[in-house]
Amino acid sequence: MGAATPAAGSPPTKHPRHLLDLAGWTAEQVHALFDTSDVMAQVMTRTIKKVPALQGFTVGTLFFEDSTRTRLSFERAARAQSADVISFAAGGSSVSKGESLKDTLKTIDAMKSDLYVVRHPAAGAPLQLTRWTDAAIVNAGDGRRAHPTQALLDAYTFRTSFPGYAGFEGVELAIVGDVAHSRVARSNVELWTKLGARVRLCGPRTLLPDELGERPGVTLTHRVEEAVEGAHAVMALRLQTERMAGGLLPSLAEVRERYQVNRARMRLAHPDALVMHPGPMNRDVEIEGVLADDPRSVVERQVANGVPVRMAVLYTLLVGSR
Amino acid sequence: MGAATPAAGSPPTKHPRHLLDLAGWTAEQVHALFDTSDVMAQVMTRTIKKVPALQGFTVGTLFFEDSTRTRLSFERAARAQSADVISFAAGGSSVSKGESLKDTLKTIDAMKSDLYVVRHPAAGAPLQLTRWTDAAIVNAGDGRRAHPTQALLDAYTFRTSFPGYAGFEGVELAIVGDVAHSRVARSNVELWTKLGARVRLCGPRTLLPDELGERPGVTLTHRVEEAVEGAHAVMALRLQTERMAGGLLPSLAEVRERYQVNRARMRLAHPDALVMHPGPMNRDVEIEGVLADDPRSVVERQVANGVPVRMAVLYTLLVGSR
Amino acid sequence: MGAATPAAGSPPTKHPRHLLDLAGWTAEQVHALFDTSDVMAQVMTRTIKKVPALQGFTVGTLFFEDSTRTRLSFERAARAQSADVISFAAGGSSVSKGESLKDTLKTIDAMKSDLYVVRHPAAGAPLQLTRWTDAAIVNAGDGRRAHPTQALLDAYTFRTSFPGYAGFEGVELAIVGDVAHSRVARSNVELWTKLGARVRLCGPRTLLPDELGERPGVTLTHRVEEAVEGAHAVMALRLQTERMAGGLLPSLAEVRERYQVNRARMRLAHPDALVMHPGPMNRDVEIEGVLADDPRSVVERQVANGVPVRMAVLYTLLVGSR
Repeated sequence: MGAATPAAGSPPTKHPRHLLDLAGWTAEQVHALFDTSDVMAQVMTRTIKKVPALQGFTVGTLFFEDSTRTRLSFERAARAQSADVISFAAGGSSVSKGESLKDTLKTIDAMKSDLYVVRHPAAGAPLQLTRWTDAAIVNAGDGRRAHPTQALLDAYTFRTSFPGYAGFEGVELAIVGDVAHSRVARSNVELWTKLGARVRLCGPRTLLPDELGERPGVTLTHRVEEAVEGAHAVMALRLQTERMAGGLLPSLAEVRERYQVNRARMRLAHPDALVMHPGPMNRDVEIEGVLADDPRSVVERQVANGVPVRMAVLYTLLVGSR
Repeated sequence: MGAATPAAGSPPTKHPRHLLDLAGWTAEQVHALFDTSDVMAQVMTRTIKKVPALQGFTVGTLFFEDSTRTRLSFERAARAQSADVISFAAGGSSVSKGESLKDTLKTIDAMKSDLYVVRHPAAGAPLQLTRWTDAAIVNAGDGRRAHPTQALLDAYTFRTSFPGYAGFEGVELAIVGDVAHSRVARSNVELWTKLGARVRLCGPRTLLPDELGERPGVTLTHRVEEAVEGAHAVMALRLQTERMAGGLLPSLAEVRERYQVNRARMRLAHPDALVMHPGPMNRDVEIEGVLADDPRSVVERQVANGVPVRMAVLYTLLVGSR
Repeated sequence: MGAATPAAGSPPTKHPRHLLDLAGWTAEQVHALFDTSDVMAQVMTRTIKKVPALQGFTVGTLFFEDSTRTRLSFERAARAQSADVISFAAGGSSVSKGESLKDTLKTIDAMKSDLYVVRHPAAGAPLQLTRWTDAAIVNAGDGRRAHPTQALLDAYTFRTSFPGYAGFEGVELAIVGDVAHSRVARSNVELWTKLGARVRLCGPRTLLPDELGERPGVTLTHRVEEAVEGAHAVMALRLQTERMAGGLLPSLAEVRERYQVNRARMRLAHPDALVMHPGPMNRDVEIEGVLADDPRSVVERQVANGVPVRMAVLYTLLVGSR
């Protein structure tokens, strides 16, 4: 954790009240959150996978965009700490009757959750909500902007899976695929560079926005071999095939041919390089099916780390020292 | 609470076993329920917003008509008292396979809830259910007939927001809008007159049924200025714009022009008059948007009182002395 | 319980780790589960219908096919023993994005349930899942293959309702209707013959597969009078009228005329014969409406036994001695 440790003698700073993105979090605070995740991961290996840490607290999930697995992961993270859960999905509610976002929140907020987990199609919606409630807000994905808990569990998986690089110094991460539409890519860029790693973004011209390359520590390339070469981790992004119809994406054949993360290309990476994917995977499209099941693949570990990392996020925001 | 207090020496009567409407409840019983609501409201201001009052009890929600927020409000009221919740929504169940209401209830009732919260499109359905189960029934809205917990939280909001009138003597309530289709209006008429207030109902001819004016303490008028004049509270009703297509409602322009509750009209009311709305609001249709955010507006307080009042209802029916 | 008791001196065998069907369970193990169901049924008659038996365990429900009541019955059975519940329904999830069953399970399994209750349209899917998780699997219906908890609650209802035949020796069960499409029929055939009863299956030629008659203790007939004669229990199967359009089923009139379980036909049965139906019923189609409400009918008792029997299943698989 060397690079991430603050200068000796400087007092630890208080973490932000919300988790909207990772901009306000220091590398030190992220590593503290990972240390808490270690404890939570240990809890989840016990026969009784439940602790009373958040007894009496209520976590509300506010999903204005559907994502069963992310929602359930947060709900499990809450219940494993004995918190109550209120689950609010926008479909079938008055949201569709044209009520304003503020009036919707005010109604939900009357139920007095202590923290809201929010997913919304509009970038910035979770930030907006912080102005209308006293509760803490965790962003579970807003438009293409950010999905910080996914990036946290990705980086946490790397920290716990690649011996000798837990401090992220000198680490090279390659992210391959539809970067333009991916909030996961944006949050990972923000997080890994903050922790001291360098990030190479790779994809076809139409899916790789130039402005992402302006950030220190980030390189853009259209050649997957260049992105993968010597990388310590290679992350394939889900190709949203439903966008292809609109002509925004190259053909399926072209994606496979030019950008698929597969065994052949992984030979160019660091010998112990990890294969990552935020899921759900299109096997044999953006990632070779057999590679996903290969020992180098930590896809299942990413999924498994979802609950402990989210437990740590809820715990830190609700009762962690500030 | 003077007018609502029974003659000295008379023993308190036992409250009804169910909450189907407010017909069987005395003013005294309603005020006792409001006293319990005061305690519950205090609980909801604590760091740990949870008490063990209903530990081991199970509350079932039976919604044959969709209403996420009302359902969640009851579920939160149950969980805040440590009760378990079974949530049954009619969509996607055997109800659509033509099963009878009785067989549906028998199946649900096999899960042994202690109390059911029921919403149903047919007036009288909750009463019907009381014949087929030993559990207590709370009506969360049946057709156009009744929505007693909404009326209770409206009156409770008035009791706690208008100093000097907590006993409701001499209070004048104006209800403006689509009275005909509103179970909220019917339940408020029943409750406020029982408590000692007078109610003025106001709306266009097609939306203001004559028979409502036959009740003691109730006046009908088609002129909003007449309804509002000197009133202590003015309640705007949601205009269900989806009904307009059928020609049942006047045009949007006419509603705004003739029946909107706005700042200009509120000048005719009592100087401390409250603005109320059962939500969800169509801002700038039946209620002026800025008025909804005005200090006179208790709309957010109505919403906030939903959980404590429903906590009091569940507590009173399940373990309250009878 | 005579016939079901093992030879004196033989040690009790350990029950299977999963409940996929009843093939791996001995009569003795089934009766032990029924003994546990007796205890659970007693719990459900108390004021506080909740025990701490499964505190800290998590039960996941995985329904790839809709069935609100079966899902809620399992959830209640879990919560009544203080377990947590994660509810995963396939609709609205990534399953519809073409993800494989294995990847779906891996994602859900990251939430670390201790036991999954699975319903799936494909026969064998629950067995498949046992290969990909360490959790216990309970089959809540897979295609036309098996629905073991329904058969268990049916047999348990017989055991507790027909004095003198709790050991099932000499018992004759008639199952009438659409046997071909019924997993309930298949599981009941497997269970009742294992317990020592004989089963008569009855239905029109197209709905009565010959191979079911090859099992020892099973007879096929197309004449309902023959099936019912002297039977100790007559079970009517739901007629899935939606299948009629395809011409697979005889007309509604023919079903009523030739296969309806009604009072007239019950006169041929044992004088104390029970009338059963797994629900939901089409009153006056496969079962006469007044017969369903007759004292001989144990339909409501079947429904009522759903929770205690499922409590016993969860308890036995999670903490029962093996």
